Amino acid sequence: MDYNAQYQAYLNTAETALAQQADRCFNERSRVCEAARYSLFGGGKRVRAVLCLAVCDMLNGNRNAAACYAAGVEMLHCYSLIHDDLPCMDNDDMRRGRPSCHKAFGEATALLAGDTLLTAAFETLSGSPGTAVQNTAAVCALSRAAGANGMVWGQELDLAFEEKPATAEELREVHRNKTGMLINAAAQLGAVAASADDIQRQAIARYAFSVGLVFQIIDDILDVTATAQQLGKPIGSDTANGKTTFVTLHGVERSRGIAQELTDGACGVLRAAFGGRAQFLETLAASLLERNQ
Amino acid sequence: MDYNAQYQAYLNTAETALAQQADRCFNERSRVCEAARYSLFGGGKRVRAVLCLAVCDMLNGNRNAAACYAAGVEMLHCYSLIHDDLPCMDNDDMRRGRPSCHKAFGEATALLAGDTLLTAAFETLSGSPGTAVQNTAAVCALSRAAGANGMVWGQELDLAFEEKPATAEELREVHRNKTGMLINAAAQLGAVAASADDIQRQAIARYAFSVGLVFQIIDDILDVTATAQQLGKPIGSDTANGKTTFVTLHGVERSRGIAQELTDGACGVLRAAFGGRAQFLETLAASLLERNQ
Repeated sequence: MDYNAQYQAYLNTAETALAQQADRCFNERSRVCEAARYSLFGGGKRVRAVLCLAVCDMLNGNRNAAACYAAGVEMLHCYSLIHDDLPCMDNDDMRRGRPSCHKAFGEATALLAGDTLLTAAFETLSGSPGTAVQNTAAVCALSRAAGANGMVWGQELDLAFEEKPATAEELREVHRNKTGMLINAAAQLGAVAASADDIQRQAIARYAFSVGLVFQIIDDILDVTATAQQLGKPIGSDTANGKTTFVTLHGVERSRGIAQELTDGACGVLRAAFGGRAQFLETLAASLLERNQ
Repeated sequence: MDYNAQYQAYLNTAETALAQQADRCFNERSRVCEAARYSLFGGGKRVRAVLCLAVCDMLNGNRNAAACYAAGVEMLHCYSLIHDDLPCMDNDDMRRGRPSCHKAFGEATALLAGDTLLTAAFETLSGSPGTAVQNTAAVCALSRAAGANGMVWGQELDLAFEEKPATAEELREVHRNKTGMLINAAAQLGAVAASADDIQRQAIARYAFSVGLVFQIIDDILDVTATAQQLGKPIGSDTANGKTTFVTLHGVERSRGIAQELTDGACGVLRAAFGGRAQFLETLAASLLERNQ
């Protein structure tokens, strides 16, 4: 199967698992769940789900367990977007070309929709067809990555640096926590579904954190080079907010160079550890480098 | 040991476990975690933690596992209070005699403090010294109780009934979800730590949902009979909001009668199932009926 067909196959697996888990965790009578569905099924590349599934496949793991883990990671990611968009946070009116959750459903409902999705993520992981040891490890990894030493910490740092410029090192710490931790967790959940060993997990972490940082660097570049239509949200917002980004620190060309180096490094680590089985994840890393939306 | 000494012993166990888990899950540099600590260690009776520990003891379960589960339930309860107090929700400025979290730390920090506590609850459960089967069951039970078919659903119903009066049946559905589900989950996690069977878990559920409802009925009564100093928050707020409560539906005397009947029923079920080992939980139910703050 070629890369695009394989990506589409993973995407279909993720969408099916998400639909099943939404049916299981949500409540038909609830407007909060309607809001959660609006955001959860509002498009998106499902990069985290695909990472989880591809790592599991690379290691010959339990695909059904990984499908549940992939759905849980996407739920958790979706909660973070809904809460980030709230007026007291980034106050974003648009997300993926549509009104953000609180614009469409009101603030209280959006807050609860985020809370529901975060909770449902752990309900989904704990109900996965993996073994109890795997499911516990999955909850452990995802909660660790999403909490006060991971994504929430990145969000907090990000808010702090809206008020003062960040150094290159601080910017990397923001991204490592705000995006990297969850992307790594997605990949690690694929590894959990395959009961991977420490050495395998370390190689996957090096790959995932690099890919996560590339993802952010490209975001920063697209904020100044893409059109609003491509992104489905206003462009130039970082510049307008006086925010430190890879582009303000290094310029567009050098930023692209850094992203290229990170991608090369990530792919090298993976190839050394897993040989030809790393092919899909290598191509995935390259495609994230070249994306224009 | 008499009831009060036993309660204090459970409370000490819960506080110790909470302090350990906060150290493990939180981040010293984070103001979000400072806010989470402010709310988590701001007093409170820790009824849920005590329930969890007492049920585990009644069934001769693993106390160390139950201590972790108790801490997780309290973290989850604390998140719900922080988010409930936010301006877009109940907009409460005071909680337990002090400024509520967003009043003390600002809205963005309070939102993230709630998110962190919810996440840390699952980190705590998954890192408990219980078996993997127990820890997975614990995550499953708590997430189910806290989500779109439990606490969040109760919160949503509660907000809806601020706009129109509720019937007696609807009011019970609000309470069953908003408070009862989490109180039952606390008790069930004690049962998980003891690998209880279905019949035991059903008896515990009947007890827990009754106790949870009594808790709410007494809250409604205290809102019209207690002083603000006793409660640490303004009194008469339900009446001022035109909210339906047990008191508006049934009056104070009949509400007390319903609470007494529920307590008697709860204790009867427990005694039938567990005999003399149910003594502490029976006294706990009676004390919740008689509380004045």
